Amino acid sequence: MFPKTKAMSTRAQKRGKESSSSGDGDAISFCLSWRLAVEANNVVAWPRVPTQCSRYVETYMINGQYDKDLELIVEEILAYVNQTFLLGDAMDAWILDVDDTCISNIYYYKGKKYGCDPYDPFAFRTWAMKGGCPAIPSVLRLFTTLIDKGFKVFLLTGRDEETLGQVTKNNLHNQGFIGYERLILRSAVYKGKSAMKYKSEVRRQLEEEGYRIWGNVGDQWSDIQGDNLGNRTFKLPNPMYFVP
Amino acid sequence: MFPKTKAMSTRAQKRGKESSSSGDGDAISFCLSWRLAVEANNVVAWPRVPTQCSRYVETYMINGQYDKDLELIVEEILAYVNQTFLLGDAMDAWILDVDDTCISNIYYYKGKKYGCDPYDPFAFRTWAMKGGCPAIPSVLRLFTTLIDKGFKVFLLTGRDEETLGQVTKNNLHNQGFIGYERLILRSAVYKGKSAMKYKSEVRRQLEEEGYRIWGNVGDQWSDIQGDNLGNRTFKLPNPMYFVP
Repeated sequence: MFPKTKAMSTRAQKRGKESSSSGDGDAISFCLSWRLAVEANNVVAWPRVPTQCSRYVETYMINGQYDKDLELIVEEILAYVNQTFLLGDAMDAWILDVDDTCISNIYYYKGKKYGCDPYDPFAFRTWAMKGGCPAIPSVLRLFTTLIDKGFKVFLLTGRDEETLGQVTKNNLHNQGFIGYERLILRSAVYKGKSAMKYKSEVRRQLEEEGYRIWGNVGDQWSDIQGDNLGNRTFKLPNPMYFVP
Repeated sequence: MFPKTKAMSTRAQKRGKESSSSGDGDAISFCLSWRLAVEANNVVAWPRVPTQCSRYVETYMINGQYDKDLELIVEEILAYVNQTFLLGDAMDAWILDVDDTCISNIYYYKGKKYGCDPYDPFAFRTWAMKGGCPAIPSVLRLFTTLIDKGFKVFLLTGRDEETLGQVTKNNLHNQGFIGYERLILRSAVYKGKSAMKYKSEVRRQLEEEGYRIWGNVGDQWSDIQGDNLGNRTFKLPNPMYFVP
C-alpha cells in the first residue's frame, strides 16, 4: 500500500550546503537541525553524514557533549531500573545493542571523516576483527548495575556470527562486559534481513522462552522499532551512521 | 507485568542543577543533553522544564534554531510527500496535531518561563479561548502542499470539543488553515483518556472508514505512538511541555 522508505532527501542535504556558504553559524545551525532530526527519527535511511557537518560531528563526538548526552540518558535508565521489581525467577531480561552502545567505533569513524565517507563493509570488518573497540563508560556502568540487580542481560548485535563471533566475545570481555546471559550475533538464517526484522525475531524468541524484556537500549532506531520491543526503549545518540 | 511510566527522574534534574553551579557552559551542556533526550523520547513524563534551562529554552525558541529545526523536518516531510502516489479515491489521508504543530502557543509559554512553571490548565484554557495562536509558518506551508496534492487532512487535537471547538476552528481559519477534511477535538467520551489512547482510537476509526494514513505529524510523542500510526510519523520539536 505504501512505498518503501527511501534515502534522505537530497533537498535537505542541498539546503545545508547552500546555508554553509553564508557562514559558519549557518552551517552549525544546519548541522544542529540535522542531528536533532536524525535522533528523533525524522531523517531516516541517510547514507552518510552531510559533508558540511564533518567538523560539527567530530566536535560533538570528541569534545564532551556526546559523553554528557550518554550520561544523562544512562541516568534516566537507572532511574527506571530503580523503579523495577524483579520477580526473582531469573526471567527478567534486558537487551543491549553492541556497536556504539556497549563498545565504541569512534576510532574507526575518525578515519572515515566521522561518517562523511560512504559506508565500507570490508574496512569495518577489518576494524572489528582487531577487537579493539573501547567500552563506552556510561553504558558499562549501566551494564554492571543491571547484572548486580539480577537482570539477565542479552547483547544483541547485527555483527556476523561466523566471522566476528569470537573476536566480539573477546573484545567485550576485555572491556569489562562480563556476566551477561547471551551474546546473540547474526547467524546465517538472518543474513540479508534488516536489523529491525532480525532483532524483532530474536526478541520474540526470547519472550517465547519466557523472558520479560524490561528495557531495550541501542544507538539505532532499528534496535528499538519493530515488535516485542520491551517495556521501555532508549535511543542512544549516534550521528555517524544509520543502520536500516 | 510492568510498572507504569513515572515522572522524569529527579536525579537528572538534580544533576543539571549541580552542573549549572560550575558555570554557564556546563548549564548549557546539561540543557542540550536534556533537550536531546526529550526529543528522542528517552526522558518521558517530565512535569516541567528544568529550572536551569529556562534561558536556554527561551533562546532556542525565539532566536531562530527552533524555526530552522522545523524547516528541516518539513523539508523531509515534503520529500516524502513527493514520493507518494495518491490513489485518487479521496481516501488518502494525513494527520496533523494542532497545538504547537499547526498553531503556536509560544506567547502563552513566554509567560510561563517557557515551561519552567507548572502546567496550569485553567490559564491555558483562558489563553486558548482568545483564539490568538499564530500559525507555524513551515507547517502551514506543509498543510497547503498536502491540500494541493489532494490529501484529506485531519486535524486531531486533545483540546476539549465543547469549550474550545468553535474558537479553535476560528483560530485555524484566521491563520490560513483552510480546506481540511475534519477538525477532530476531544469529545465527552474521551475525557480522562491519555492523548495516546484517544488519538489511537480516532485513527483506528478513520482507517475503518477506509482512509489510508500516509503521514502523521505532531510535537508530542503521544501524537505518534500507539496504534494505527500511519505509514510515516514525524516528531516536531517542543522543549516546553510534555503531554502524556
